[in-house]
Amino acid sequence: MNRHLLSTADLRREDALLVLDTAEQMARLSDRAVKKLPTLRGRTVVNLFFEDSTRTRTSFELAAKRLSADVINFSAKGSSVSKGESLKDTALTLEAMGADAVVCRHPASGAPHRLAGWVHGSVLNAGDGTHEHPTQALLDAFTIRRRLGRLDGLAVTIVGDVLHSRVARSNVWLLHTLGAKVTLVAPPTLVPHGVSAWPVDVSYDLDAVLPASDVVMMLRVQQERMSAAFFPTEREYSRRYGLDADRAATLPEHALVMHPGPMVRGMEISSEVADSARSTVVEQVANGVSVRMACLYLLLGGADERDEREVTR
Amino acid sequence: MNRHLLSTADLRREDALLVLDTAEQMARLSDRAVKKLPTLRGRTVVNLFFEDSTRTRTSFELAAKRLSADVINFSAKGSSVSKGESLKDTALTLEAMGADAVVCRHPASGAPHRLAGWVHGSVLNAGDGTHEHPTQALLDAFTIRRRLGRLDGLAVTIVGDVLHSRVARSNVWLLHTLGAKVTLVAPPTLVPHGVSAWPVDVSYDLDAVLPASDVVMMLRVQQERMSAAFFPTEREYSRRYGLDADRAATLPEHALVMHPGPMVRGMEISSEVADSARSTVVEQVANGVSVRMACLYLLLGGADERDEREVTR
Amino acid sequence: MNRHLLSTADLRREDALLVLDTAEQMARLSDRAVKKLPTLRGRTVVNLFFEDSTRTRTSFELAAKRLSADVINFSAKGSSVSKGESLKDTALTLEAMGADAVVCRHPASGAPHRLAGWVHGSVLNAGDGTHEHPTQALLDAFTIRRRLGRLDGLAVTIVGDVLHSRVARSNVWLLHTLGAKVTLVAPPTLVPHGVSAWPVDVSYDLDAVLPASDVVMMLRVQQERMSAAFFPTEREYSRRYGLDADRAATLPEHALVMHPGPMVRGMEISSEVADSARSTVVEQVANGVSVRMACLYLLLGGADERDEREVTR
Repeated sequence: MNRHLLSTADLRREDALLVLDTAEQMARLSDRAVKKLPTLRGRTVVNLFFEDSTRTRTSFELAAKRLSADVINFSAKGSSVSKGESLKDTALTLEAMGADAVVCRHPASGAPHRLAGWVHGSVLNAGDGTHEHPTQALLDAFTIRRRLGRLDGLAVTIVGDVLHSRVARSNVWLLHTLGAKVTLVAPPTLVPHGVSAWPVDVSYDLDAVLPASDVVMMLRVQQERMSAAFFPTEREYSRRYGLDADRAATLPEHALVMHPGPMVRGMEISSEVADSARSTVVEQVANGVSVRMACLYLLLGGADERDEREVTR
Repeated sequence: MNRHLLSTADLRREDALLVLDTAEQMARLSDRAVKKLPTLRGRTVVNLFFEDSTRTRTSFELAAKRLSADVINFSAKGSSVSKGESLKDTALTLEAMGADAVVCRHPASGAPHRLAGWVHGSVLNAGDGTHEHPTQALLDAFTIRRRLGRLDGLAVTIVGDVLHSRVARSNVWLLHTLGAKVTLVAPPTLVPHGVSAWPVDVSYDLDAVLPASDVVMMLRVQQERMSAAFFPTEREYSRRYGLDADRAATLPEHALVMHPGPMVRGMEISSEVADSARSTVVEQVANGVSVRMACLYLLLGGADERDEREVTR
Repeated sequence: MNRHLLSTADLRREDALLVLDTAEQMARLSDRAVKKLPTLRGRTVVNLFFEDSTRTRTSFELAAKRLSADVINFSAKGSSVSKGESLKDTALTLEAMGADAVVCRHPASGAPHRLAGWVHGSVLNAGDGTHEHPTQALLDAFTIRRRLGRLDGLAVTIVGDVLHSRVARSNVWLLHTLGAKVTLVAPPTLVPHGVSAWPVDVSYDLDAVLPASDVVMMLRVQQERMSAAFFPTEREYSRRYGLDADRAATLPEHALVMHPGPMVRGMEISSEVADSARSTVVEQVANGVSVRMACLYLLLGGADERDEREVTR
């Protein structure tokens, strides 16, 4: 396993499976009411968030605390960043304070990669610009495997604003690595230019794709990132790309409906579908904590070589 | 004891007394410098605050940490709530993340009740609109009992902006349940319409009521909630409803002066009275931590049936 | 040792050395990967910050957590302070909640002194107005001693906006107490009026002073505190008072370059100098945690008399 978790595009199949298997152990301990492990006692995890994201920050905070790590929330607002400090100096400061891991959310694609070049601790990408959000993809894969028993050979359809979605990017690469077949469905204006280089099919017709999908992954419509040119009206979007009960009825009986949250009920997904038995929305949140525990555990945890490094560095 | 603490209006006398007795034990442990109990180790308490309230949030945070729970502060600002997520989805998200208790402050009356219908964990109302603030009433009752030895038969006078005060509502019901006789004193425009259904007397003449009061509870004037129609001038309010040294001198010798804080010294209460020996303002804050420890302990703590439920759910 | 740490001007030489020696022990434990001490288990440290300062707040938070204390971050924004509560009532509230130490950052010089008069717990000044920032001076002294082996007899040059700098004030007094010889170099408009009463030399010519300096301490230019009258242009400032590679080359070989951070690279210090071997910028951050652990440990820690006081108060 690498020292950092920056993207799924360069995550090896065996490492991805190791995360999923470790997360399974974490989930089982939690099911048996074992809620606190001493593994990371004395380690410090810093949440370095340059964008607000209470959900993701909270999920990482809980994961770290269940492993008994100390957690510091370092919001960029009102911090020295606003006094002109560079990202590099912020990184060196956090490392000097003893951060063993930095969980980084940043509006600029690539920021966590740059961080990783400057520090000796582990960097976990918690979402960078429109680039990647690897723990989201890992929790999605974990959720599918828990429900359907496997990933290999499954047909996964990702629907919505692929252009602006780091969740879609991370899922495309991870699902491909794990043997699933991915189809993207999006308005033509919301398909990325370079998509021909991705291991995916592209369709503009949701209704044609649904009957052969084992999994439908709805993306959040990020209206705040769009101009009107991309995105005509809510009603038009909902009519062509929203998942309502009629559309969901054309899915195979075993098929899952996923959403990374937060949902805008009504436009991208109807309440009936979001709350149906095939929806995994709530499970995804729960699995997110187990997957992030697994990532922190594997990057920081156990292991004699790590303790050695610390003593000698 | 119920699974939730949502209001004092439906709190049974025996449960209220159980909270007060448990708080007494917590306070005694704290007096003996036992500041950390292992009771809630591995449990997660989420502070879900849709309104700023550093005091109440901090008091719950301290109470939970003294019981060794993990605490997550989930502020609604900048969270997915502002991205259009519903309260229900926020609740399901927090539960999925493993929240054992949600402490909820919300500007809408009834929000914690709705929360309680959606989650399996415990919900503690930390103030909802103009409705209730049950832990404040419990800490007030605890403070009176500690000072005067009992609640039954005492004459308690609540003074000020009753109309907008959830503190007043919670106190009215709890004090009635515990056998005290409550009199409300307020400007006519700040008395709620439905007050005739409450177990209280109403007076517009503070001076007439004070000599027979065992306890005077001053409310915070919430000017931010009032229009000029309700509330003519500070000077006029202070003259008729403010508690200064001259007025306090007409109280019985043993009588207490209470205030939930934060105080606006000068208008609603003079500094001389606020700092006098009969003032319990600082004790109320200290007792707030003990009472909230008791509530968390009783709702979440101990008990084999709870562990069973967790394993099987 | 006093109960509070409010300034270095009144810190006795033996107490300053005790802090440095204790910090040395903390740093050595950390080097040996002992990252968590049980010393302050059950104690509560409150960060009471009336100004944003993520760096200083985080450093104290980490220090307290490494000593196993519970930490509460009490930001003044959105708190009862904004509802008109006085500093005194805030202080009494925090103490009533059980704060054993209050770490206070405040825009008004002297605010922590006033706090200390109202509470029984310890107050640590984390920066007050333009007055003092004692833990910064202690970590600077610790850094110098760790690098150069001593403080006595060293020539320390402090460069920049001395007028607005609490860091400069705290360093002047502490370095004098510990036997160093301090020279201030600043534009004439940024030298305080009362400087003739300080145990320092003043120079307006950085180039003349550097060759005889063992340590150069660059201050942050706080443009937000300055009007144009004080501070003509960035280029002019940089030309006369900035530390670039050419200037640094005139320092003795062993001399250190220090900066409290956050740095504005380019104006006050060039990147080449900031990242050079003689720069202690990153060490200062790491040492900050050790020094703050030492302060909290000495003010709150161990000691039977303390436990006695708690039981009887």
